[in-house]
Amino acid sequence: MKTILYSEYTEFSEQKLNKNRLLSQQILNEIKPIANDIINFGDDALYKYTKKFDNVSLDNLKVTKEEIERAYSSIDSQLVNIFKQAIDNIYAFHKPQLQKDYFLENKDFYLGQTYRAIERVGLYIPGGTAKYPSSVLMNAIPAKIAGVKEIVLVCPPNSNGEIDPNVLVAADLLNINEIYKIGGSQAIFALTYGTKSIRKVNKIVGPGNIYVSMAKKLVYGEVGIDMIAGPSEILIIADEKANPKYIAADLLSQAEHDINACCILITTSNEIIKLVKDELNKQIDKSKRKNILSVQSTSNMFCFLTNSIEESITLSNDIAPEHLELMIENPKVYLSKIQNAGSIFLGEYTPEPVGDYWAGTNHTLPTSGASKYQSPLGVYDFIKKMSYLEYSKEKLEKESSSIIEFANAETLFAHANAIKVRCTQDE
Amino acid sequence: MKTILYSEYTEFSEQKLNKNRLLSQQILNEIKPIANDIINFGDDALYKYTKKFDNVSLDNLKVTKEEIERAYSSIDSQLVNIFKQAIDNIYAFHKPQLQKDYFLENKDFYLGQTYRAIERVGLYIPGGTAKYPSSVLMNAIPAKIAGVKEIVLVCPPNSNGEIDPNVLVAADLLNINEIYKIGGSQAIFALTYGTKSIRKVNKIVGPGNIYVSMAKKLVYGEVGIDMIAGPSEILIIADEKANPKYIAADLLSQAEHDINACCILITTSNEIIKLVKDELNKQIDKSKRKNILSVQSTSNMFCFLTNSIEESITLSNDIAPEHLELMIENPKVYLSKIQNAGSIFLGEYTPEPVGDYWAGTNHTLPTSGASKYQSPLGVYDFIKKMSYLEYSKEKLEKESSSIIEFANAETLFAHANAIKVRCTQDE
Repeated sequence: MKTILYSEYTEFSEQKLNKNRLLSQQILNEIKPIANDIINFGDDALYKYTKKFDNVSLDNLKVTKEEIERAYSSIDSQLVNIFKQAIDNIYAFHKPQLQKDYFLENKDFYLGQTYRAIERVGLYIPGGTAKYPSSVLMNAIPAKIAGVKEIVLVCPPNSNGEIDPNVLVAADLLNINEIYKIGGSQAIFALTYGTKSIRKVNKIVGPGNIYVSMAKKLVYGEVGIDMIAGPSEILIIADEKANPKYIAADLLSQAEHDINACCILITTSNEIIKLVKDELNKQIDKSKRKNILSVQSTSNMFCFLTNSIEESITLSNDIAPEHLELMIENPKVYLSKIQNAGSIFLGEYTPEPVGDYWAGTNHTLPTSGASKYQSPLGVYDFIKKMSYLEYSKEKLEKESSSIIEFANAETLFAHANAIKVRCTQDE
Repeated sequence: MKTILYSEYTEFSEQKLNKNRLLSQQILNEIKPIANDIINFGDDALYKYTKKFDNVSLDNLKVTKEEIERAYSSIDSQLVNIFKQAIDNIYAFHKPQLQKDYFLENKDFYLGQTYRAIERVGLYIPGGTAKYPSSVLMNAIPAKIAGVKEIVLVCPPNSNGEIDPNVLVAADLLNINEIYKIGGSQAIFALTYGTKSIRKVNKIVGPGNIYVSMAKKLVYGEVGIDMIAGPSEILIIADEKANPKYIAADLLSQAEHDINACCILITTSNEIIKLVKDELNKQIDKSKRKNILSVQSTSNMFCFLTNSIEESITLSNDIAPEHLELMIENPKVYLSKIQNAGSIFLGEYTPEPVGDYWAGTNHTLPTSGASKYQSPLGVYDFIKKMSYLEYSKEKLEKESSSIIEFANAETLFAHANAIKVRCTQDE
């Protein structure tokens, strides 16, 4: 873990941003031909790319009932109960996000806003060697609460042509039964443009690697997307009383995600920095993933020494982390000062995995500073609004001269005319 | 106006989609070098492109106080009052969109969601020959209600180096005083990457031509954007009692926007189609913009004959128009059947300009079928959410085995470890 100045971090993150811009551009160029292939050759192209990227020749894209039954028999029934409890917790947290219609009304007019669930949503779940049943729950439950009628799940198969049973069981517990064994950018394109066996969707959500993220960027505007996700991040603000063992464990939990994960400690205590470094070494030594974690700890872990908690928070707001842990006394007091973060973990006994799996808050969160403008995934991502308005004849006549003058100021004379034809007798 | 079958319309819109995809791709390639120039040369590149695209050599990018004062003296004071009334109406409609925090709590845990206004927002207003003070109001007022502290307005100058006084006055009425005379993709890139004289923003909203839309698509992920806007659309559902004069006027009001605007009539009455065609000819003849409107009426106006209002609505839901007018008896009754539309105009006396300028609903609406997944611009576009959670020691200990088992199922052992270090004594 490197102790650095903020100016050094700014430079580091700008370099990373520039590198990412180039990489994104390169990947966009790589995947454009795949998009064209899906548009032109549909399912055939899907089978071709699944063979190429997932190393498996499939007979069928759609997961069968038998495969789902088999999935249940291959996982521990205790785990199914754990999934069920997590589902209850996620439902409880997300239900209050359902919004209500509203309207303004008097005898002359009626204006309002009403809500509809998006009709058909595609849900991308990473696969291959990864298995993320938690992502199934976190993405599908807000959609269910919103009232989405059709949820389509896509997940790349392993080299045996199978999707991880944990993922299948999680999907089945939420009554998702339209599941396709496809992944990568080709899955995003199939959901966008449709093929013979996969009808196109209205919106695509869910995490993925940079190929998936860039495919989502490419199709945005033809379908909706949730966000463009980057590597995962944790930022821990700790005071001198915080437990170095917990801090080290939490930094490492983020580091195991991927080689670009970013782990930051901000503290007022030099002593804490020293103790955390010792703990990191101890825990890395004992870890099953010693090699990767020791690389991570030297290349993607940073710590800052600040003069006060206020200064730590200012720095954190500027970084806008995906996960923010406040390991400080009375963390709630500082909540109102947090401006930019995906999810905020308060106190010593709320490490990030509590949010990843369990408490009920969503784990699909804005990364790479996007929490400056983007929210965690929620029920609102699966609902769209429509406004409506009705004017009476009398109201329109009363307001007509103002509306006409406004339209004329914009030199939109046919707009003015649409009012005039209704409010003048002589034509 | 062509009377067509739905299959013909589907083919027409797919052809348009394919054409747009190619055009979008071409424009993305054209503007990438502009992005690089803004990143590398900042203000110098802004002056260069303003000279190139707006035909004017500016001394200064920022609008001065004197320019705003001069704007007031060049517009009718009656128009200022009209702007003020529109502002009141827009505030009244949008205020109920402010959301409330919520939390779940018991002695063992505390979970919630809280809201923050986005800190700095860029607002793009088209300029040159166009003048859209209404877009200033429609984009800035929801941002003001959300509590956005810094609203930056950009608008391309005319060949005298000036921004339309209507736009400046509208901005000033909302206390927006950071205004730059830049437009096109270069303005979007300046807002995204920042230059010496323009600090970068967190999110960019507002309408624009295809260069602006593609620039927004390109930068999405580095900043937030509201939506990718396409050409404007109107769809009118009319029964046999509807007034053909009003229908024709409303179709033409949309047609004057741009050469790609799309105007659709769906009706159960052949007679109405005949009468609307006659009216179109009459009104085009009398119009100040006879030439463009007569081209529009042959190339971008369509009508469908259906068997029932239900069938008309099914068709409309599939098209998902930006503006939907229901010129039918008891239009409110059908509101619940509308699934996809930006804004819905009920009855004979609510033509689209009532929503464009006056009633208070927003006129920044999803186009090109995007109302299947996207909402009108609103207060929610300027607010982002954050979740937070706190577990007690007892709660964490109680749930630890479940969380650990879930993490292990995903083979994320360092996640499991972050729980273990807090819940086992012996280390």
